[in-house]
Amino acid sequence: MAKKVFEIEMKVRDYECDTQGIVNNANYLHYTEVTRHEFMESLGVSFYECHEAGIDPVVARADLHYKTSLKGSDLFLSSLMVEKKGAKLIFHQTIRRKTDNAVCCNAHIEVAILVNGKLSRGDYFDEKMKDYL
Amino acid sequence: MAKKVFEIEMKVRDYECDTQGIVNNANYLHYTEVTRHEFMESLGVSFYECHEAGIDPVVARADLHYKTSLKGSDLFLSSLMVEKKGAKLIFHQTIRRKTDNAVCCNAHIEVAILVNGKLSRGDYFDEKMKDYL
Amino acid sequence: MAKKVFEIEMKVRDYECDTQGIVNNANYLHYTEVTRHEFMESLGVSFYECHEAGIDPVVARADLHYKTSLKGSDLFLSSLMVEKKGAKLIFHQTIRRKTDNAVCCNAHIEVAILVNGKLSRGDYFDEKMKDYL
Amino acid sequence: MAKKVFEIEMKVRDYECDTQGIVNNANYLHYTEVTRHEFMESLGVSFYECHEAGIDPVVARADLHYKTSLKGSDLFLSSLMVEKKGAKLIFHQTIRRKTDNAVCCNAHIEVAILVNGKLSRGDYFDEKMKDYL
Repeated sequence: MAKKVFEIEMKVRDYECDTQGIVNNANYLHYTEVTRHEFMESLGVSFYECHEAGIDPVVARADLHYKTSLKGSDLFLSSLMVEKKGAKLIFHQTIRRKTDNAVCCNAHIEVAILVNGKLSRGDYFDEKMKDYL
Repeated sequence: MAKKVFEIEMKVRDYECDTQGIVNNANYLHYTEVTRHEFMESLGVSFYECHEAGIDPVVARADLHYKTSLKGSDLFLSSLMVEKKGAKLIFHQTIRRKTDNAVCCNAHIEVAILVNGKLSRGDYFDEKMKDYL
Repeated sequence: MAKKVFEIEMKVRDYECDTQGIVNNANYLHYTEVTRHEFMESLGVSFYECHEAGIDPVVARADLHYKTSLKGSDLFLSSLMVEKKGAKLIFHQTIRRKTDNAVCCNAHIEVAILVNGKLSRGDYFDEKMKDYL
Repeated sequence: MAKKVFEIEMKVRDYECDTQGIVNNANYLHYTEVTRHEFMESLGVSFYECHEAGIDPVVARADLHYKTSLKGSDLFLSSLMVEKKGAKLIFHQTIRRKTDNAVCCNAHIEVAILVNGKLSRGDYFDEKMKDYL
């Protein structure tokens, strides 16, 4: 059974490119974060309100494979699938250039959920994410 | 009578340069912020502890004049002088390339002090800064 | 006679906020840059292609007045008007929070045009921008 | 036989922290990049001059394990060891908080070397790095 995919369209900002004329590798982590936060927001969860309530998703591992480089003003599609693994949420994320669907980056992101600064069982978002798990 | 000057040495990080091969203009605001925070720290004031205590310096105005562009790995000197003007702290900041002392950026930064989210009389740091005012 | 205004809608990315929970001041420079580049693109001018062709707009001065702070996930409207002043382009830019139209930042940005690294007469974009000048 | 280690001391800049009050995950990629570039510079190789000469190291994979979070103004030690694996350079990088030596991030970074935009055999830096390989 296919997993449900969440996807947004984004566009490279020129300041995200470095001297090599391509998007600096660290910005792909930003793109994947924006995508996760938009995903959460689509489920009615605000990252900011979570933080105010003492619930902080934190990245425990980020494994990024870089394929094709994005350049200034490129449009791209950023998608994710999510699964539970113990107390962690595992996000499988892909960034593809819009013009030709070339994969730019595949990312495996593990997120732990802190509640009041302590590691939680991670079930805080289960009900909200049920269509995707 | 000459004002006392605070100065630190910094170095351009390559990711701070954009496609044009020069430091992106927004990073000069970062440099000036780092310099102010190091200045505060030299006076025994931690930006982080201030925030925890409900005291938040916020930039009300930033006026930057860009002269010579910094490039990747350039060393530079970042200096400041400070004065009080009503409830605001006014920082006169200069960034110079180390090799030839060329002025890269002159900045006039106005900082207001919020205490528990409200504008204060701004005298919170007066005693600490007395050698510089 | 009213000037023609260019405007885009943007959204705060959570990583653009700092420990104070508000958008870090340097990111407003990024927002204004994105807006200018989108403006240029709407006129058929690509920042990236310009650079490849040896034409580099560079910021000579940026004067930002900060009013209301943006927070994580806030939607905002970023607008600009442009005029010529000698060899420079002067951009009058405003960032307003979408929910209540509160002004967050007013920016006065002066841009010089380098052609093959040398200051030009700045008329390179006049024809393209004629509806806005 | 123990590998030779390269290490620098760095300090968290407050703007690198996000709303959670801790260094945003993407900045660890910046820290590891700065460390690799300082390493190269210690060997007499300038990232900027390499780019001008058509030689561009690009990150092919970055796998980061986040342990302890850094906060504003924290001092940390960023170290690396390097090995060759086929045409790639593999960097084993560690970031430790200075006060207590707590590991903040372990990173495995794979770098490919492009020469004039094409993947090279990766032996460009072998001679320079011989003490570390």
